[in-house]
Amino acid sequence: VHKSDVSLASMELGPYSHFMQKEIHEQPRAVTDTIEAIIDDNRFSPALFGDGAEAVFDQVDSVLILAAGTSYYAGLTAKYWLESLAEIPVNVEIASEYRYRKSVPNPKQLIVTISQSGETLDTMEALKHAKSLGQTLTLAICNVQESAIPRASKLVLYTRAGAEIGVASTKAFTTQLIALFTLAVTLAKQRALLSPVQEQTYLGELRHLPGSIQHALNLEPQIREWAKAFAHKHHALFLGRGMHYPIALEGALKLKEISYIHAEAYPAGELKHGPLALVDEDMPVVVIAPNDTLLEKVKSNMQEVRARGGELFVFADADSHFTESEGVHVIRTPRHVGILSPILHTIPVQLLAYHAALLKGTDVDKPRNLAKSVTVE
Amino acid sequence: VHKSDVSLASMELGPYSHFMQKEIHEQPRAVTDTIEAIIDDNRFSPALFGDGAEAVFDQVDSVLILAAGTSYYAGLTAKYWLESLAEIPVNVEIASEYRYRKSVPNPKQLIVTISQSGETLDTMEALKHAKSLGQTLTLAICNVQESAIPRASKLVLYTRAGAEIGVASTKAFTTQLIALFTLAVTLAKQRALLSPVQEQTYLGELRHLPGSIQHALNLEPQIREWAKAFAHKHHALFLGRGMHYPIALEGALKLKEISYIHAEAYPAGELKHGPLALVDEDMPVVVIAPNDTLLEKVKSNMQEVRARGGELFVFADADSHFTESEGVHVIRTPRHVGILSPILHTIPVQLLAYHAALLKGTDVDKPRNLAKSVTVE
Repeated sequence: VHKSDVSLASMELGPYSHFMQKEIHEQPRAVTDTIEAIIDDNRFSPALFGDGAEAVFDQVDSVLILAAGTSYYAGLTAKYWLESLAEIPVNVEIASEYRYRKSVPNPKQLIVTISQSGETLDTMEALKHAKSLGQTLTLAICNVQESAIPRASKLVLYTRAGAEIGVASTKAFTTQLIALFTLAVTLAKQRALLSPVQEQTYLGELRHLPGSIQHALNLEPQIREWAKAFAHKHHALFLGRGMHYPIALEGALKLKEISYIHAEAYPAGELKHGPLALVDEDMPVVVIAPNDTLLEKVKSNMQEVRARGGELFVFADADSHFTESEGVHVIRTPRHVGILSPILHTIPVQLLAYHAALLKGTDVDKPRNLAKSVTVE
Repeated sequence: VHKSDVSLASMELGPYSHFMQKEIHEQPRAVTDTIEAIIDDNRFSPALFGDGAEAVFDQVDSVLILAAGTSYYAGLTAKYWLESLAEIPVNVEIASEYRYRKSVPNPKQLIVTISQSGETLDTMEALKHAKSLGQTLTLAICNVQESAIPRASKLVLYTRAGAEIGVASTKAFTTQLIALFTLAVTLAKQRALLSPVQEQTYLGELRHLPGSIQHALNLEPQIREWAKAFAHKHHALFLGRGMHYPIALEGALKLKEISYIHAEAYPAGELKHGPLALVDEDMPVVVIAPNDTLLEKVKSNMQEVRARGGELFVFADADSHFTESEGVHVIRTPRHVGILSPILHTIPVQLLAYHAALLKGTDVDKPRNLAKSVTVE
């Protein structure tokens, strides 16, 4: 009964024009549902990952994350969290690459697969390949209960995003990030790297997250204005650094997928090693820079961008001292989300892609050439 | 005296229009010089990397490669070689990212830095950061003798590309690949994973490489024809798989840097996870597919590319059964280079970028916004 209620509710567009818009706006609820068990328990526990998780986590000396598309970018974010919080080395690899190359198996490595549908063929085959190499410690992060990938894995953490109809993943991505953050904190705790005070801090940040996401959603009118500057462009560059670089990748992918604008992401420090040659008035540059550090570092690059007529669109902290100027637009994002900042900063790049696509009149929920779940090679 | 002779020779353009073209054509010589010591000795030896290399290699349990731009793509290629030949786990990280995040130090990890000039600021700072974390096993791969990065490293292997004047790196990249392949084979040998027969096979492949590169250079007239299809485009997609994916990245970067065409690379398997939405008649697709496997895998994607008017430009093996058809262009690359195939397949993508830029009339040797050695942040 519960299941069919959820499906019915998901099929209703309500006040929204597209499922993608609806799903973007469902994120406070999706995140609330995904963190519910942790908040109710007021602690991070291996039990969240299923029976035997504590014993598995005890054996683990490193992590290998296997995924495709948007889920791969969730994995890239997780590397920052896992290495900094749990001090465990992490590799993140594209599933379709891993399955066809000769890699070095490590039976103490935790294989983490990420797939919204739990049926992504490349990811399933990568998991099978890992298992064939003797990698038995497997964890699936999926949104669809009892799908193929969790059934083939020892441990599972289900995201509770609810059915996702739009082909471009939104709420599945942010809830995947919740699941991966939970993994990082849980491993940190089991490895005696998490003080009770720190645990309470992270719990507090999780509790505040749905509200902060709602604040980010409230930026929609401002972002709709920005979208006008993108809709008639053929290119865009997204810059981020550290744990916000994968969010730049995700923002560029969203714009590609639904607005057919050729957006590409770079870690900001790589700009001067090549892509800066590309920047001119036809190439708006989005900077995901929730604090001043990145802005300081790229300031000289930014001047070159400006000198060539390129416009800058900066997402900066409410605390940031960065201000608007000729050709430099700034939207202030909610503050005080700490290490969960990548989740929060996903919202505005989703909205930007959505409104650019709307202005272009593309088929937002079913972009050309793409399928929701990629179950072929 | 030797040094100034080299500089004088390098300053002469001879029959070439640009230093970049000259440097592309110098690659048979640059590769010959870089492999000379190995060929003369008829074996791979730790001594190539300096005093004490054997003792360092004995301690190593993994490799971390730090670099920026083109050198980073050389590092990505090396991961395939090191993991498959030496069975040693490898991470490759962008220098400017590594230096600013909290990572997990491992004193048994070999830190490999790659920099043409040996003065790249981000790479130098990344090396200092690694050393500050207690990572003492360091190896530099550089083209400029006694530059800062090799001076700060325990081991060094110099590429012998000669002075590189063009801002877009060409012969430095292919010789870096030689150095990294040498590292992979040397580590494999020291770890008792290389039979004498296999060693002779690799030596033979190295010996044949300059001649194969010359054959690839002889494809210039065909590639000049292809360039006409790119010069008036604003976009391009480069696809590769496995050890040829970094070559697709390098091909896209070259086109960006000197022709200002927004080229982007994807591992072929990721196409259907998003970027396929972008493909239409304005987006030529370059496929680096030296054997049939990749072509088979992407065939259904290719049909979608064709259905939307996208043209395909395929670099395929002489042995491949892939044939030309409406909108599908094929250039056959020299065969029998085996595991050195990424080096060989770099040549045609360099030539493609060069001739596209020439048709566009850009300043090939000094592209806008870029510096030869990036010695600032």
